[in-house]
Amino acid sequence: MRALVFDGKLTLRDIDRPTLEPGEALIRVTLAGICGTDTEILKGYSAFQGVLGHEFVGRVVECADSAWLGERVVGEINIACGECSSCLRGLGRHCPHRTVMGIVSRAGCFAEYVALPVRNLHRVPEAIPDEAAVFVEPLAAAAEILEQMRLEPATWVVVLGDGRLGLLVAQVLKSAGAQVILAGRHGWKLDLARPWGIRVTADSKSVLPPAGVPVVVEATGSPRGLEEAFRLVEPRGTVVMKSTYHAPAPFDAGKLVVDEITLLGSRCGNFSAALELLQRGQINVQPLLSKVFPLEQGLKAFEYAERTDCLKVCLANTPG
Amino acid sequence: MRALVFDGKLTLRDIDRPTLEPGEALIRVTLAGICGTDTEILKGYSAFQGVLGHEFVGRVVECADSAWLGERVVGEINIACGECSSCLRGLGRHCPHRTVMGIVSRAGCFAEYVALPVRNLHRVPEAIPDEAAVFVEPLAAAAEILEQMRLEPATWVVVLGDGRLGLLVAQVLKSAGAQVILAGRHGWKLDLARPWGIRVTADSKSVLPPAGVPVVVEATGSPRGLEEAFRLVEPRGTVVMKSTYHAPAPFDAGKLVVDEITLLGSRCGNFSAALELLQRGQINVQPLLSKVFPLEQGLKAFEYAERTDCLKVCLANTPG
Repeated sequence: MRALVFDGKLTLRDIDRPTLEPGEALIRVTLAGICGTDTEILKGYSAFQGVLGHEFVGRVVECADSAWLGERVVGEINIACGECSSCLRGLGRHCPHRTVMGIVSRAGCFAEYVALPVRNLHRVPEAIPDEAAVFVEPLAAAAEILEQMRLEPATWVVVLGDGRLGLLVAQVLKSAGAQVILAGRHGWKLDLARPWGIRVTADSKSVLPPAGVPVVVEATGSPRGLEEAFRLVEPRGTVVMKSTYHAPAPFDAGKLVVDEITLLGSRCGNFSAALELLQRGQINVQPLLSKVFPLEQGLKAFEYAERTDCLKVCLANTPG
Repeated sequence: MRALVFDGKLTLRDIDRPTLEPGEALIRVTLAGICGTDTEILKGYSAFQGVLGHEFVGRVVECADSAWLGERVVGEINIACGECSSCLRGLGRHCPHRTVMGIVSRAGCFAEYVALPVRNLHRVPEAIPDEAAVFVEPLAAAAEILEQMRLEPATWVVVLGDGRLGLLVAQVLKSAGAQVILAGRHGWKLDLARPWGIRVTADSKSVLPPAGVPVVVEATGSPRGLEEAFRLVEPRGTVVMKSTYHAPAPFDAGKLVVDEITLLGSRCGNFSAALELLQRGQINVQPLLSKVFPLEQGLKAFEYAERTDCLKVCLANTPG
């Protein structure tokens, strides 16, 4: 099958189809999304080598449990051992023995086929088209914030970063009742968020109460974002950090202690919650889909994804 | 009156007694403690100039409200405006207009007399001697952790740092039902904690479950402590940061996000809680009192406080 493989260099190759372990399903990938983590891996993040990709929607084509055959699915990206203390606490996403599709020791979905344990799969309701379902993984990551912290209704939240993740986080927190200000540097991305009822600004300082806001979400993807978040948060407030990057972060330890700030790391989330948000129609994801490339043009797609005038870039398999 | 004044250099001087604002009391300081923050101020922290000192016990000698006259008291160090949104939320310790005794724009207690609003004062129960009462401020800072986070009984906690604050934090968390391991580099300080039923170690890695612990308190006073705390904490765990220092802190932003760590800044605390802990006899503070110098020998006391073979150093006024 064709696949986008990273081994220090990203190439399109012919490789063998994955062989299934017990409990796994083989999925023919329909649509797969390029994520910031993928481009970070190209810079050395996670020291991963292999088939890239962890956001997809596809159809099960092979599985010992025939109930899954033909099902349209998305898949959780962490493959946990199921036996360690983290797994037994229900924190399989933090299993120390886990592999992570396309990120840690496991082939990803920028290929014609990908294998995943069936316990990682979620059926996609008919009302959700492929072009929306491919956003389930990043939307789940955005919704993770609500699992980690209590957000009182009408709480002021500043989301820093008008990229894909920032646009998703802003919508998810608004749907949970927060008053959201999205701060970014790209007029056309901020314009996307206006019709969703989200206040937007290119200058976060100008719209804020001088004492700061209770919650700031850092989703800029840049180490500078954390400094800005610390400037904006009020005493006893929370900075949620969503960006993962391959660089040290400068950080005002004095302010953290004196103002008793909570800095909360937040990563992957629950797919069921994300599917429910999509099904209720509360989240606009399709305006974030900038361009779809055939898998064959994967290298070009990665180049395109680095452009500042695009949001989500996807790879499509030709109908097989 | 005699006072220890910092104006780029620490000197013992004769200065005027404080004059009282409405609502304030004049307190004759009996005993005052030298804190890590004081020695940080000498290095530039907080850009403070004036009479140093914020830990004391003393007796009210002048006050418009005669009910306070002659009372033995300790005093909260943050002087809030009482009117801003922080104050109205009950967060006077975070009032942006606050002064802080001996730290921000207000004379401290390394002097014969100090002035404080009566609303900052707490009467000291008779059962608590001066040598214990002088620890109320740092003990309140240690107890603040319990106000900020929920600590399930029997939770494993590693306290990093066997200094004054670490020894107090370890005891407070143990009294709240946690299983505490105190990690430090000084055998004689760790030996102090053994009879209190606290597990101690000079090598935190050797005694820990490999998956890490749910809570790590960073009380080393050094930027290196934060790195060590991140190595020890388990996924979804909490690192409580108590150290304030005048230097940037290196910090593993990738681990924070991937392991969804909570980094919680923690500073001053509630004096009532600390007085109650002392009155119940659950906390041993007097073994931490290394030496008492007369105020006249304040400069010598500061030199002594820098020695690694001492814990708390206090300044005493001769009975007036």
